[in-house]
Amino acid sequence: MNSYGKLFRITTFGESHGPAIGVVIDGCPSGLSIDESFIQSELDRRRPGQSKITTQRRESDTFRILSGVFEGKSTGTPIALVIDNEDQRSNDYSHIAETFRPSHADYTYEAKYGNRDYRGGGRSSARETAARVAAGAVAKLLLNQSGMDVKAYVSQVGDIKAPHYLNLDLNNTENNIVRCPDESTAQRMIDLIDQVRKERDTIGGRVTCVIKGTPVGLGEPVFDKLHAELGKAMLSINAVKGFEYGSGFDGTLLRGSQHNDEFVNEGGKIRTRTNHSGGIQGGISNGEDIYFDVAFKPVATIMMDQQSVDKEGNEATVKGKGRHDPCVLPRAVPIVEAMAALVLADFFLRNKISKL
Amino acid sequence: MNSYGKLFRITTFGESHGPAIGVVIDGCPSGLSIDESFIQSELDRRRPGQSKITTQRRESDTFRILSGVFEGKSTGTPIALVIDNEDQRSNDYSHIAETFRPSHADYTYEAKYGNRDYRGGGRSSARETAARVAAGAVAKLLLNQSGMDVKAYVSQVGDIKAPHYLNLDLNNTENNIVRCPDESTAQRMIDLIDQVRKERDTIGGRVTCVIKGTPVGLGEPVFDKLHAELGKAMLSINAVKGFEYGSGFDGTLLRGSQHNDEFVNEGGKIRTRTNHSGGIQGGISNGEDIYFDVAFKPVATIMMDQQSVDKEGNEATVKGKGRHDPCVLPRAVPIVEAMAALVLADFFLRNKISKL
Amino acid sequence: MNSYGKLFRITTFGESHGPAIGVVIDGCPSGLSIDESFIQSELDRRRPGQSKITTQRRESDTFRILSGVFEGKSTGTPIALVIDNEDQRSNDYSHIAETFRPSHADYTYEAKYGNRDYRGGGRSSARETAARVAAGAVAKLLLNQSGMDVKAYVSQVGDIKAPHYLNLDLNNTENNIVRCPDESTAQRMIDLIDQVRKERDTIGGRVTCVIKGTPVGLGEPVFDKLHAELGKAMLSINAVKGFEYGSGFDGTLLRGSQHNDEFVNEGGKIRTRTNHSGGIQGGISNGEDIYFDVAFKPVATIMMDQQSVDKEGNEATVKGKGRHDPCVLPRAVPIVEAMAALVLADFFLRNKISKL
Amino acid sequence: MNSYGKLFRITTFGESHGPAIGVVIDGCPSGLSIDESFIQSELDRRRPGQSKITTQRRESDTFRILSGVFEGKSTGTPIALVIDNEDQRSNDYSHIAETFRPSHADYTYEAKYGNRDYRGGGRSSARETAARVAAGAVAKLLLNQSGMDVKAYVSQVGDIKAPHYLNLDLNNTENNIVRCPDESTAQRMIDLIDQVRKERDTIGGRVTCVIKGTPVGLGEPVFDKLHAELGKAMLSINAVKGFEYGSGFDGTLLRGSQHNDEFVNEGGKIRTRTNHSGGIQGGISNGEDIYFDVAFKPVATIMMDQQSVDKEGNEATVKGKGRHDPCVLPRAVPIVEAMAALVLADFFLRNKISKL
Repeated sequence: MNSYGKLFRITTFGESHGPAIGVVIDGCPSGLSIDESFIQSELDRRRPGQSKITTQRRESDTFRILSGVFEGKSTGTPIALVIDNEDQRSNDYSHIAETFRPSHADYTYEAKYGNRDYRGGGRSSARETAARVAAGAVAKLLLNQSGMDVKAYVSQVGDIKAPHYLNLDLNNTENNIVRCPDESTAQRMIDLIDQVRKERDTIGGRVTCVIKGTPVGLGEPVFDKLHAELGKAMLSINAVKGFEYGSGFDGTLLRGSQHNDEFVNEGGKIRTRTNHSGGIQGGISNGEDIYFDVAFKPVATIMMDQQSVDKEGNEATVKGKGRHDPCVLPRAVPIVEAMAALVLADFFLRNKISKL
Repeated sequence: MNSYGKLFRITTFGESHGPAIGVVIDGCPSGLSIDESFIQSELDRRRPGQSKITTQRRESDTFRILSGVFEGKSTGTPIALVIDNEDQRSNDYSHIAETFRPSHADYTYEAKYGNRDYRGGGRSSARETAARVAAGAVAKLLLNQSGMDVKAYVSQVGDIKAPHYLNLDLNNTENNIVRCPDESTAQRMIDLIDQVRKERDTIGGRVTCVIKGTPVGLGEPVFDKLHAELGKAMLSINAVKGFEYGSGFDGTLLRGSQHNDEFVNEGGKIRTRTNHSGGIQGGISNGEDIYFDVAFKPVATIMMDQQSVDKEGNEATVKGKGRHDPCVLPRAVPIVEAMAALVLADFFLRNKISKL
Repeated sequence: MNSYGKLFRITTFGESHGPAIGVVIDGCPSGLSIDESFIQSELDRRRPGQSKITTQRRESDTFRILSGVFEGKSTGTPIALVIDNEDQRSNDYSHIAETFRPSHADYTYEAKYGNRDYRGGGRSSARETAARVAAGAVAKLLLNQSGMDVKAYVSQVGDIKAPHYLNLDLNNTENNIVRCPDESTAQRMIDLIDQVRKERDTIGGRVTCVIKGTPVGLGEPVFDKLHAELGKAMLSINAVKGFEYGSGFDGTLLRGSQHNDEFVNEGGKIRTRTNHSGGIQGGISNGEDIYFDVAFKPVATIMMDQQSVDKEGNEATVKGKGRHDPCVLPRAVPIVEAMAALVLADFFLRNKISKL
Repeated sequence: MNSYGKLFRITTFGESHGPAIGVVIDGCPSGLSIDESFIQSELDRRRPGQSKITTQRRESDTFRILSGVFEGKSTGTPIALVIDNEDQRSNDYSHIAETFRPSHADYTYEAKYGNRDYRGGGRSSARETAARVAAGAVAKLLLNQSGMDVKAYVSQVGDIKAPHYLNLDLNNTENNIVRCPDESTAQRMIDLIDQVRKERDTIGGRVTCVIKGTPVGLGEPVFDKLHAELGKAMLSINAVKGFEYGSGFDGTLLRGSQHNDEFVNEGGKIRTRTNHSGGIQGGISNGEDIYFDVAFKPVATIMMDQQSVDKEGNEATVKGKGRHDPCVLPRAVPIVEAMAALVLADFFLRNKISKL
């Protein structure tokens, strides 16, 4: 199914080279001021062609609101947002109609559905994430009003890593095209991506996300733990291979006596001395910073010839041509933020009915 | 909400020290042979007190079927399974009624609900996972009939790591109490856990899970990607901090030309030469082995005194006493398998209606 | 699926002659006082064998709470309620293992599932409604605390009809065994049922339900209109053939100018002069009395021989024997109330997040 | 929420006077031929301005497909259909911005959301049903391919009633503008509507729907009984006040011995001798004709002045002006069919996984 969220619920639609993509947001409370320029600015952060290290596909990604907003405010009815596809150039993609690109979704879609829109990857294209970003922008408007702030940045490209988030000023993220708030690291990342691009190859990395201002109580026990939903949301983004929060995989090396976050009373507020828990205990936010890492593989579209098979199983060569992102990380930052905001907005509403 | 799955759907209930825990399985097709001894054997793998390196809490974890099975077969109606709580000893837990244990769910439950069953952690206790294992056993029966096989094992305890799964015989997993199929690694893991136990501390680690025999086509595009659901399922298990599949976090270091899995025709069957994709492309199984890693933090219950605060915010000491698991990994193996089986069973049913 | 409700959600399980039936309530807010004697009293109203005009099957319908309640209050975790089946007498039902009873679910279950628990109708038995009544009692506790009151009564048996609800004192409903608040009508209904019972036949009728004290705003636009959900809830009860609310089918005969409910300001409160709308406009409660009628067919189990076919399609006779209700209406009253309460509790919670 | 269906799931959006209305269909299997001219012809049956007895609002109701269809076939991805609003004339509606129209949703929306698009009723306008008809047309394409046929007609206007469906040729329904297959009854209905229109009033009635060719097994036990879902679907249509199936409310007058449908073997096929069950037993289709009645109240918009109150509670007069339907029944026929088709398509898919 193409829906996400229980109470703040989105349904996305659209293929890479169809007439349009879009999203319906169902469950946004009435009375929220819908700042259209903010939504557009979020889309601009994800937009292709924004810098020399992203794909050169040209899309303005201009959205239109079809419903759910009246005189600048949400009305409680579904908010439908549509983005027309402008740069369709379908002829670019005829060569992949019959042949399966390695590590793309061509083969699995073909097997599952028997029928697929192969142009530009169709539904499996990361173009679908524009709809998520638009919806995530609305979620952010809801969260910001309640004092929550979601900020992501590129923390790793290949083997180049940024310092820990506590040593960064996350307001600097948008100061460079790779979206790493540490300027010197950013420059090295840009150089690496540029080199990889020239080699007609691609490279992976990590996005780190930090959420501040969360009230205590978001998340549900058992299956819908806050970090479980965040994990699903992140893993649903194209090219993601892993998720960890708080101490994450490194936490496996620690002893309980090292890992436990002791409680302290800090001026009348219950806090924890350390935050290996990543702001979440028992699946529920405890008011500390929530932080997590998301691993992205190198983009599967490379500018080299690759061996593969066609629909009949015959050996075939996939040509390396067209436009692509040498590294998806810079454009992934707003997508990670959007999905995180959608998860939080949903739990924010769910928490309103947890007690009498 | 306390339900998981869309078509093969479970709802669990019960607290650690209430009368019973249990699960209702809704959506199991009729006609499945329900092997009760198999369900019990799965529960026995998770049961406390099974070896010297697990908690000594005594529970036989004997289940009863209340509905949904007639003359040994599922009828298509809800299958309710109940496990009585035997070893309740509530007096053990009076000391935590007022004080929040570090890195437990005490504080967040209290803040969210204002009212909690504090005995043994109540609903947040890992005891709830027994219900998942019982339901997962039914899911396994469904999968096995279709040729799928889910096997997990302990691949890391602290800094001790087992070889890659391709170099292991997963049939050996149950040969030792730590559930690592490599005997020499297993012995070192057991020694480490034993040492940690004597130090009244706890230690984390990893479980690796391998799924063989999956047909092509399981998983849904966009939000309900197979690995996204697996990730959520794993992250919903108590103490889990991270999830990665296929190349995972290490895949971030590779170039696209290294990471892509080229297709080959292997005796008429479309296969991939490598499997960095972990058996999943575009969120849909491609028929190769599915494999993933799950990171577990060290158990939060330690046998040492810890600083904390009570419900009024006063400083308080949490005493280190009672029974605990020095390392949750050995008992986590059947839980990981159960959750994986539940995800697969759900997608197996969902895939039956993907095309005409 | 065997679940009902979106936020206040119940899942029932159990067959007529299995070990037990039960229900899991998921989504009840924490902090609700759970009055167990009230729950039992509601079950007693539905219990078989309560009077000479109901079936003589003997069941005490004693329930146990397995989870979700601590020190008399809900904790926000799932509330599981179980009722053991006492009077199983499976041998009574061997004759229907092979033959399909007319207007029962035997044939359709057999065709759909290929496998059914035929004893006493198995899952299709109205015994399942005991679980609904138990859950509905918890919903009533939630509603009562917010000033809502759900009252149903028998308004028709065969062709004997009670006066309009505005001319009745609904507090008299429990004063007689047929649950009609008009004493003289009640006596005629009882006489008719008694006569029908002696003729070894059954008879249908209507239950009317009136809900007072509903706040303005319950119900959702479009698909989940308050009356649409009430309609589904009622139609899901065994033997129900129709539902109408407000002016209902008679409203089809009116002109708009007769049917419209004009608004008036009544001491500062917006009211309607008439209430053809049945307290619901545009699918949302307007604060007036909600009222609706539910049509029940005559019970399908009759004490006469009937022609039918067996599983192989051969002609067969279904013998008229065993125990049965000559008229389901008196016992249907608490079931109608329970389902209405479940619908309202769900919308009550949903409405808490409709606006900022 | 604005979604309907579990596996064949639609989400509608849009207000009467916003830029567009539309629907996203999620869960349509791949490989279905999407006949666009058929979808348009269904919309044309619902379109305003189609005859002298419907509203004269002008809308061509031309739809566009934005996604989910490739080379004429469904791909298994969401099918988004959009219909632009052409005749917006918002100035017509300024008078209802402040005053609540009797028996409309103005007051309840205002109370629930605090913020509403009052133009033409906004989201509460029956214009939303165009999206349902478009989606229902796709459902019909799916059903027709499996031999199912959904046909509705106007069976009553005011006190004028058509003969029982068994005495009608339902292929004649589209032969007249009131959509009653009995020509002489149709003429009397048209005359009545015309008279009511001249009186600036409105009138209610019934639509009857008959579904042929349903396989045995559609519908789920307990809550999601086939007739319960049909009832909800019908009651969710604007102006509907009641639903009955099979013997319906008249069935309450019968004895069980009269009402029961005995099984017979008819040339190797199990049939019932009578069909008081309306093709559904125990909530599951038994292969006989499914038939039901839907009661529509007279349209609330009348061309007369009515007393009401404004947002501040002051007495106010609602002027009778603008365009309206004197009788909603003729245009309701395709809406009833669409909702029935959506229910059946959903259960058709659900039934594919009921047994191994």
